[in-house]
Amino acid sequence: MPPFKTAERVSWVDTDAASVMHFSNYFRFFERAEEALYRSLGIDFELVRRRYKIWLPRVEAFCRYESPSRFNDVVEVALTLEEMDRRTIRYGFTVANTTTQRLAAQGYVKIIAADITTRRAATLPDDLAKRIRDALGDPRE
Amino acid sequence: MPPFKTAERVSWVDTDAASVMHFSNYFRFFERAEEALYRSLGIDFELVRRRYKIWLPRVEAFCRYESPSRFNDVVEVALTLEEMDRRTIRYGFTVANTTTQRLAAQGYVKIIAADITTRRAATLPDDLAKRIRDALGDPRE
Amino acid sequence: MPPFKTAERVSWVDTDAASVMHFSNYFRFFERAEEALYRSLGIDFELVRRRYKIWLPRVEAFCRYESPSRFNDVVEVALTLEEMDRRTIRYGFTVANTTTQRLAAQGYVKIIAADITTRRAATLPDDLAKRIRDALGDPRE
Amino acid sequence: MPPFKTAERVSWVDTDAASVMHFSNYFRFFERAEEALYRSLGIDFELVRRRYKIWLPRVEAFCRYESPSRFNDVVEVALTLEEMDRRTIRYGFTVANTTTQRLAAQGYVKIIAADITTRRAATLPDDLAKRIRDALGDPRE
Repeated sequence: MPPFKTAERVSWVDTDAASVMHFSNYFRFFERAEEALYRSLGIDFELVRRRYKIWLPRVEAFCRYESPSRFNDVVEVALTLEEMDRRTIRYGFTVANTTTQRLAAQGYVKIIAADITTRRAATLPDDLAKRIRDALGDPRE
Repeated sequence: MPPFKTAERVSWVDTDAASVMHFSNYFRFFERAEEALYRSLGIDFELVRRRYKIWLPRVEAFCRYESPSRFNDVVEVALTLEEMDRRTIRYGFTVANTTTQRLAAQGYVKIIAADITTRRAATLPDDLAKRIRDALGDPRE
Repeated sequence: MPPFKTAERVSWVDTDAASVMHFSNYFRFFERAEEALYRSLGIDFELVRRRYKIWLPRVEAFCRYESPSRFNDVVEVALTLEEMDRRTIRYGFTVANTTTQRLAAQGYVKIIAADITTRRAATLPDDLAKRIRDALGDPRE
Repeated sequence: MPPFKTAERVSWVDTDAASVMHFSNYFRFFERAEEALYRSLGIDFELVRRRYKIWLPRVEAFCRYESPSRFNDVVEVALTLEEMDRRTIRYGFTVANTTTQRLAAQGYVKIIAADITTRRAATLPDDLAKRIRDALGDPRE
């Protein structure tokens, strides 16, 4: 199944004194892609929180930087489902700089379902898990 | 009465491709000084929210930029009480770059008390107002 | 002449513990609108810097906050040319929250042309000034 | 050899709508610790860039999140030298939340020396490598 894709543009504020996008901002681009995925699937986090009483906090984040992104560059963020079990989701991200035509970064974010009150690990709601798997493909297959 | 002062250091992430601190980050330094003021007065916002059911949202923010701040520069943020009435507080800020020995920026932030549920304007708790006025001086005097 | 408009979406990272967009981030939305304006006019800042040896640093920034923006809200940023003379530009910004159908914020940013080496005030290149005035209308008329 | 330590305080702007510090900000705390290390060793990056013509771009960044940090929490960032060879440095980071008395996060950042003009991998200046190793201990021992 093809990855879910979004496009982002590097703003002036994203850059640092080396004239390239600051490394921490790639994680923000990862998250914007995830947010766009949920919107595209009709998943409203306000509702998820209220109905299922869970958050989806991050437990791991990783990024490998391949080439710099500069002010005004457009990057394409491709999101894939790398792992999913009853409690965790791992999304993979590939950031392609469409301005320079080079791979900019690759990484992943691992997420758990957590009870909104106790913050303990919880089970991913079936409906949520199914919609994500239907959209991105089952990583076990 | 002397202003309340804090020191901040410009991080790499605060800079942009012009090698100076991004203009939006001065507002973040303003807010850090305000946070430090409340801590110094023993004002715990978790408690304020729970006891008085108010927030202190910003209604206006202004900054005039005088000279650039660069990576690793230390700036001193001086906070004064410019105005205070039953519902609003206006803090003034002067940012002096102690590395370059120049004035970096001057500005203000205007805050209102707002009911945490309705978000309508509320009255500043007397105790809060008194502690701020005692520390910073009464701007009407 | 109609204002120049862009749309932005509030990301999770833009919010703070009050569940609303942090006040400093409106200035970043202002700047993204300005960046989009220059792109739409074919103004490349890399070229401007190299050919004219100028930057466009901010000398003033102001915002009045009217209503909060929340995660996933879409806001429309309308940019107008409020003032322009040989050395300075003042852009006005109106941020309309299209999700809540309310005015979110209004403000302005005042910019000067500055020599890239000396950082002293310089003259705005005629070509740049003309393109901006042609697109946004002459504020003196 | 003991790790190099710095303290950071979680600002309001660092939090998100879950009332905890946004995951991307831990990487900014990592970097602030690294900046403090260089200052403590008298390493001036302006000088490094000019004399050796190198940058130190990040090639990998990783963080595992253990417990949330909230507004006003103080965290202690401990930096260790995990690996160092002729071209790369890997710093490890442990973030202890001194307010909650819990481990908040652990991670690392891998850095390479890169020629400032070509952006190709370069050799770490001996003097720089020696000062870092003297301060943090040699990871091969």
